[in-house]
Amino acid sequence: MSLSPTPRSTVQRGKKRAVTDRAALARVLDAGLICHLAYVADDGTPRVLPTGYGYEDNTLYVHGSTGAASLRAGAGAEVCVNVTLLDGVIYSRAVFHHSVNYRSATIHGVARQVTDPDAKLHALHVITEHLAPGAWDHARGPSPQEFAKTAVLALDLTEAAVKIRTGGPGEEPEDLTPERIGANWAGVLPLVRNWGTPEACEHLPEHVELPEYVSRRAPQAGPQ
Amino acid sequence: MSLSPTPRSTVQRGKKRAVTDRAALARVLDAGLICHLAYVADDGTPRVLPTGYGYEDNTLYVHGSTGAASLRAGAGAEVCVNVTLLDGVIYSRAVFHHSVNYRSATIHGVARQVTDPDAKLHALHVITEHLAPGAWDHARGPSPQEFAKTAVLALDLTEAAVKIRTGGPGEEPEDLTPERIGANWAGVLPLVRNWGTPEACEHLPEHVELPEYVSRRAPQAGPQ
Repeated sequence: MSLSPTPRSTVQRGKKRAVTDRAALARVLDAGLICHLAYVADDGTPRVLPTGYGYEDNTLYVHGSTGAASLRAGAGAEVCVNVTLLDGVIYSRAVFHHSVNYRSATIHGVARQVTDPDAKLHALHVITEHLAPGAWDHARGPSPQEFAKTAVLALDLTEAAVKIRTGGPGEEPEDLTPERIGANWAGVLPLVRNWGTPEACEHLPEHVELPEYVSRRAPQAGPQ
Repeated sequence: MSLSPTPRSTVQRGKKRAVTDRAALARVLDAGLICHLAYVADDGTPRVLPTGYGYEDNTLYVHGSTGAASLRAGAGAEVCVNVTLLDGVIYSRAVFHHSVNYRSATIHGVARQVTDPDAKLHALHVITEHLAPGAWDHARGPSPQEFAKTAVLALDLTEAAVKIRTGGPGEEPEDLTPERIGANWAGVLPLVRNWGTPEACEHLPEHVELPEYVSRRAPQAGPQ
């Protein structure tokens, strides 16, 4: 299924970076841990905040306190969500062509508040599984009070755009002449994200071993 | 100097995470490589995009193509910029208290387009130095054409908020009883960002050695 059905979700700048299949969107969402949620505040000015998310099928979920301005302003309103993974810094022969390698997904749409208790609990499960896969089945579920003070927004993944940049520097022909081609170092300095060594809570009894659902997020097997 | 001089830049949710000194803002901006820039599009809907940045004294700079909708919409208009570093996933005894450790800065204000040629060149220098320190002095400077098609926005760092979360899970007293305290693993799984091994451009002559300004960004000495 292709993405980009509307002008605002059609990549205008850097079209060669645009990726238009739904599987690419899923790969970016799978790799990310937080998104940036933008909305228009009551005073008409833009706001953006980082927050956790999860997704299932064609729906992205974010959650927050029922008192959060973002959750109140975003319910029933247009929002824009971006998930970006930064993969490296591009060193070019020209200042102008310094850049970054990245994978980025942007989703536009009207967010709807999830109020049905079963649907809301399911959304919280999806969000928790994205952040900490496996944890939902072992941790204490939300109390009525915790459940009541959590708000969930849902956003269709229909109107989305994906941009991906990989590879080395793009250069001007003038910078690839024999005189210029080796004038300064050019290439990619990758950026790698890894899980570190798990740090148990100071109150955790020593007999509680690290579960497989945490240990499989081992160092050198990062979330990217 | 303290931050948070206005209601919208005063942290409302999670106040215990708020940090109000300017040095903390500088540390977050120093650690980040990209920001998320939010603006209100001509149709009144919010947009957010990831982009490089740099800052100097009390001014944040972002740049982009003169044709980019963001740069056009942001000039002379309210924008909101966020820089977030994700430091780990919090596993709690309660689903509700799963969280992340992070450092996050949010800046609000009216962006102004930098049009004076000297000021614009200086801003591009600042942005390039942030992304690739040292590169400006070695790479070819912008040609008149490259310079003309780059737009720069400047934003005061005056109206800003910083939130930082560190440490282990926050738990309810009911989850720290002898029966519950070891019911499931609880702690922090750190997230570590490192530079990888530099990959020279395939066209780079072999005699061009990796310069110190790149090699000092060595693996295991990440940008965080």
